[in-house]
Amino acid sequence: MKLLILNPNTTQALTDRLAASAARVLPDDAQIIRATATIGFPYISSRAEAQIAGAEALAMLASLQGEYDAAVIAAFGDPGLTAARELFDKPVTGMSEAAMLTALSLGERFALVTFAPALVAWYGEQVTRVGLEKRFAGTFTPDASFGEIATVAEDMRAPLVETCNRAAREADVVILAGAPIAGLAGDIAEDVPAILLDPVQAAAMQAYGLCRLRPKGSNAGSFARPPAKESTGLPGALAAWIARAE
Amino acid sequence: MKLLILNPNTTQALTDRLAASAARVLPDDAQIIRATATIGFPYISSRAEAQIAGAEALAMLASLQGEYDAAVIAAFGDPGLTAARELFDKPVTGMSEAAMLTALSLGERFALVTFAPALVAWYGEQVTRVGLEKRFAGTFTPDASFGEIATVAEDMRAPLVETCNRAAREADVVILAGAPIAGLAGDIAEDVPAILLDPVQAAAMQAYGLCRLRPKGSNAGSFARPPAKESTGLPGALAAWIARAE
Amino acid sequence: MKLLILNPNTTQALTDRLAASAARVLPDDAQIIRATATIGFPYISSRAEAQIAGAEALAMLASLQGEYDAAVIAAFGDPGLTAARELFDKPVTGMSEAAMLTALSLGERFALVTFAPALVAWYGEQVTRVGLEKRFAGTFTPDASFGEIATVAEDMRAPLVETCNRAAREADVVILAGAPIAGLAGDIAEDVPAILLDPVQAAAMQAYGLCRLRPKGSNAGSFARPPAKESTGLPGALAAWIARAE
Amino acid sequence: MKLLILNPNTTQALTDRLAASAARVLPDDAQIIRATATIGFPYISSRAEAQIAGAEALAMLASLQGEYDAAVIAAFGDPGLTAARELFDKPVTGMSEAAMLTALSLGERFALVTFAPALVAWYGEQVTRVGLEKRFAGTFTPDASFGEIATVAEDMRAPLVETCNRAAREADVVILAGAPIAGLAGDIAEDVPAILLDPVQAAAMQAYGLCRLRPKGSNAGSFARPPAKESTGLPGALAAWIARAE
Amino acid sequence: MKLLILNPNTTQALTDRLAASAARVLPDDAQIIRATATIGFPYISSRAEAQIAGAEALAMLASLQGEYDAAVIAAFGDPGLTAARELFDKPVTGMSEAAMLTALSLGERFALVTFAPALVAWYGEQVTRVGLEKRFAGTFTPDASFGEIATVAEDMRAPLVETCNRAAREADVVILAGAPIAGLAGDIAEDVPAILLDPVQAAAMQAYGLCRLRPKGSNAGSFARPPAKESTGLPGALAAWIARAE
Amino acid sequence: MKLLILNPNTTQALTDRLAASAARVLPDDAQIIRATATIGFPYISSRAEAQIAGAEALAMLASLQGEYDAAVIAAFGDPGLTAARELFDKPVTGMSEAAMLTALSLGERFALVTFAPALVAWYGEQVTRVGLEKRFAGTFTPDASFGEIATVAEDMRAPLVETCNRAAREADVVILAGAPIAGLAGDIAEDVPAILLDPVQAAAMQAYGLCRLRPKGSNAGSFARPPAKESTGLPGALAAWIARAE
Repeated sequence: MKLLILNPNTTQALTDRLAASAARVLPDDAQIIRATATIGFPYISSRAEAQIAGAEALAMLASLQGEYDAAVIAAFGDPGLTAARELFDKPVTGMSEAAMLTALSLGERFALVTFAPALVAWYGEQVTRVGLEKRFAGTFTPDASFGEIATVAEDMRAPLVETCNRAAREADVVILAGAPIAGLAGDIAEDVPAILLDPVQAAAMQAYGLCRLRPKGSNAGSFARPPAKESTGLPGALAAWIARAE
Repeated sequence: MKLLILNPNTTQALTDRLAASAARVLPDDAQIIRATATIGFPYISSRAEAQIAGAEALAMLASLQGEYDAAVIAAFGDPGLTAARELFDKPVTGMSEAAMLTALSLGERFALVTFAPALVAWYGEQVTRVGLEKRFAGTFTPDASFGEIATVAEDMRAPLVETCNRAAREADVVILAGAPIAGLAGDIAEDVPAILLDPVQAAAMQAYGLCRLRPKGSNAGSFARPPAKESTGLPGALAAWIARAE
Repeated sequence: MKLLILNPNTTQALTDRLAASAARVLPDDAQIIRATATIGFPYISSRAEAQIAGAEALAMLASLQGEYDAAVIAAFGDPGLTAARELFDKPVTGMSEAAMLTALSLGERFALVTFAPALVAWYGEQVTRVGLEKRFAGTFTPDASFGEIATVAEDMRAPLVETCNRAAREADVVILAGAPIAGLAGDIAEDVPAILLDPVQAAAMQAYGLCRLRPKGSNAGSFARPPAKESTGLPGALAAWIARAE
Repeated sequence: MKLLILNPNTTQALTDRLAASAARVLPDDAQIIRATATIGFPYISSRAEAQIAGAEALAMLASLQGEYDAAVIAAFGDPGLTAARELFDKPVTGMSEAAMLTALSLGERFALVTFAPALVAWYGEQVTRVGLEKRFAGTFTPDASFGEIATVAEDMRAPLVETCNRAAREADVVILAGAPIAGLAGDIAEDVPAILLDPVQAAAMQAYGLCRLRPKGSNAGSFARPPAKESTGLPGALAAWIARAE
Repeated sequence: MKLLILNPNTTQALTDRLAASAARVLPDDAQIIRATATIGFPYISSRAEAQIAGAEALAMLASLQGEYDAAVIAAFGDPGLTAARELFDKPVTGMSEAAMLTALSLGERFALVTFAPALVAWYGEQVTRVGLEKRFAGTFTPDASFGEIATVAEDMRAPLVETCNRAAREADVVILAGAPIAGLAGDIAEDVPAILLDPVQAAAMQAYGLCRLRPKGSNAGSFARPPAKESTGLPGALAAWIARAE
Repeated sequence: MKLLILNPNTTQALTDRLAASAARVLPDDAQIIRATATIGFPYISSRAEAQIAGAEALAMLASLQGEYDAAVIAAFGDPGLTAARELFDKPVTGMSEAAMLTALSLGERFALVTFAPALVAWYGEQVTRVGLEKRFAGTFTPDASFGEIATVAEDMRAPLVETCNRAAREADVVILAGAPIAGLAGDIAEDVPAILLDPVQAAAMQAYGLCRLRPKGSNAGSFARPPAKESTGLPGALAAWIARAE
């Protein structure tokens, strides 16, 4: 099984961090393929950036058709996720959605912990999109501001542990949200009295599971692939796929 | 006051239809400006197309900075709406959201009527996004299939009237959803025992009102304009605006 | 367009304050008409008082039939609003409902700020009535108690600014609720990092917009005017209107 | 224990019908007292009428102070209920609320059955007010139109039985809503495969129970009696009670 | 009327405490019968213990058939309640459900106060089960840990009063949850500015009321008694009842 | 990895059917272990039976400690699931919960299809328990009644296909609920225009995934294993485990 870790950020180092974290839990028969966005932002951190990155994710999925059995959109906030499910034939998962659904099988309430207050509103909107408000205990962030995206997991380890402990007073499961802190959950598990989830791991295992349960992806009902349509100005592979001219 | 009717579809005729409908209700001091997408689809009808069209809407808003006091994203489904509010300094409204909020001041429950079953799921997701499920009576469509987008309002007048009558049994307010049927509400009002709303009119009046109440737009709280950020591969005006290099 | 600012409180000075605030945003073609309750309370501040004031609002609307194109029930808590929509032929708006619906087009979550803790439960019930709990961040009040209703906006300016700042940590939009603080939003906008809304301005612009969109008001569906009915002991104009003997 | 059956309609015969139904279930130590509105409508059937009747209910409760230990507001729709709880010292119950809360202890979902489609929206709003949407299966009415309010229970027995059977397919408990059909539940219980509730019986037993559990009524928290307040134009006993001059 | 106070805990002293509290409010024509579990735990305090105790409650109800007119499952958390309603012919009430439903007729929001943080999640799940999240202000507990279950009401009186005062800031009605503090509500009512409810009293009065309103219990709709079924290894009376061989 | 398929029904043939279906999707490194209840019912079909079977499931899990890495409670309705998560150290999944959570990653709305109307209410309560009402399109059943549990999947194939087609008009994903129809989803997938899910497959893959993500199970937060407690009359292994005397 070829599992695509699609990073809609343009930072290759984040792709590597995410793939490394996913590799820690995937079974041996899952082979990870990596892709990094070439259009967009080094690190998506707003609704506007997600709007643009989601379109790029669709272009990437179109151009990589045939090279993967399932794909993970590897940014918290799931840019382009429902659009991708509608358009393509293979299972596609997202870090936010997969982490939240996994949390529901491990505890009564879940919380998000992330490293920047600016992410709180956008991340919270993912909970509404999936319809899980009743099980959501809120998003928690450190007061401290972070320096570099590349080293935030290391630089902010102490304040993030403290934040997780606050979250653990309200929730059974704490999701460490945001690609730059992928892998941190495993490192600090002993320091927090809650179940910690690493979203890319959850998304990778969900993609693996869907491949076994439903290798055809979501292509039925309201997610049936739309009829052929002409377009203007789209990247070639995406335009061809939408025109069913592939 | 200059009010931008931004059509994220690539069909100029739809822009004209939408602007004509809006013009019927706007006060004299509102001047309509029109823009039609150059990248995207003749008519958006899926989540995937909205993902792409929403990114194009952002590019259009960036390139038209300074030429409008408020903007209407003139496609039901509101592609790019929250992203636009976050990014730009002027009030931005959307046809779905404005029609639904207006409906709440005119009746207890509202319904959507549209011309194609394929739109039902995506349109219904707008209700969830705005958080109005409790006031929502469902989306109703004719059984008949439509022929041409350009003439659907005329071709399907009879089945749409019948559908509105069905919707009127469940709701006080019926929203005629979809740019191709803009203007139809006024034509069939006598034939339906419910309050009919034309979304582009609702969105235009909402934009007009916000301009008077809050000319600075949504730029506070979680919708504060993000800090400057570099990007790769974006249209020039949008990249410059996001980099705060405009 | 003649726009009735109907104050269901018996205090003329409040009517003037409300009308002055509305006048600041209304277009030139809107002419404000004022009416002040003659039965009821100097300032409504409980469910019981709203029950009584709502009945008086209906009597006022009946006796002023023909003199207005749209009406604003100018007390937060909207006494008599849905009853008025059912009974009369013109658009009627309320300060709570209009402010909340306007807030939804400007931010993700809204909060209420008011000057007295006794108002919190009753004001919160308006959120439930309209069905907007998901977007509601709570009602915030100063700890300080207020002296005179007439001068509360001036006397409590500092604690209200502090309260708005607390509310701004939970919400994008802050509604300054309560007729005695009408107009304050404009004065303190620079001191609060959120979008401030003045409810009577929102209600006046909503009434103006409905007049253009739907000059016939809400009279369809469950808000269709009830059949003629006899009554006992009602004010003459109201009894006549309900008996359809006007 | 003296239990006031307060009929906010002006029809004495309805008061008698309601009291007779309540008497069938009340224990021997409960003595029924009757009161019929002198201001208002023969039979309340709209939001507007409930607004006016609720104010009259407050006046009645004020003038009967000292003569009852608990009161039932005996009209489905509960006009004035929360206002009464706020203002007075004794337990007050309402037919809608009591029937719905009782239903929750007898089945998973409840439905309303009433005799006129015009009541559906207003009755449904009671479900929202109490916050029980999740347990609500809808309001069902016969297609047939009724003739006289006084004899509707007899005239429409057959269509109401048929309607109850339809409701029973969606709900475990069926509430026969509307004062004119008080007592019918007992007569048709054998003809419907569901639990039938008579709202005035539920409200009377709830009032009886609250008298034993909480004879002081609701006077704490947000229902604490408001401070003394002057008023203009109110009925004497009500004005005096509100001014705490009784 | 014979009213069974069924204690699913194995501690006889708790049964006595619960019966004594119920006796304080029940009318003279209600005779209390007591039963204490012989299988299970001295005091149920987790989901797992409730799973086991609920099965025991069913066995007790089967073996006591014919000896009661209505039953109260006298443990907060209502172990076995919906199962019992399905299986048996008489009204059955539970402490959690009855207290919450009673609270809704006395105030806008209710809170739970209990003596041990470990109970919070399980108790909160009762609110979800009954569908009352909108009226729920949370569960509050003292920081202090308790010593003996038998004397917790006395030992923790001061911290529980302090906790009730905290809860009263968020809610109109405070439910003192947990069999070991049955009766405490009456003792501390003067010390808390809220309406205090004793759950076993609420459940006993609800059972009394249902006996008068609906002596046949819940046996219709989805709570109709299941058809005869064979079983293996169940207590004799329960097996016989389920096999309809009684 | 040893994966326990725990059948809380007493019918060995159902265990075999469930295990066979799970085996079709599990990876090679997952070894299935089977257990069948010895106390309870041939086939659980009511809330009361689930109450009893859930207690038996706990006893089974206790007696099999050390022999499995993760467990599936293999009955739709998930008897004992949250209790098991609280008590034991390994991941435990349930057929209802796993199928619903999996559905959320494959479509917008899901429906349940089962073979007997008597199961509808109880199955629907699982949706509420997990908090997924917003994504739920209802439970659908054939009108035809079934004969033998053992052969229901074969006997009712045609009416179940018809029922799935009805469900597919309301939902993207259809869950074939009930152990006796395990495996049917694969057989009829070509006949239904929706995504079909087999719950035991979803639960098995979820258990497999949790073993990789969180091999320690749910033992933190409100699901932390309770302190040692004495009990009376419990099966030996369960009593010992609860007393922490294992």
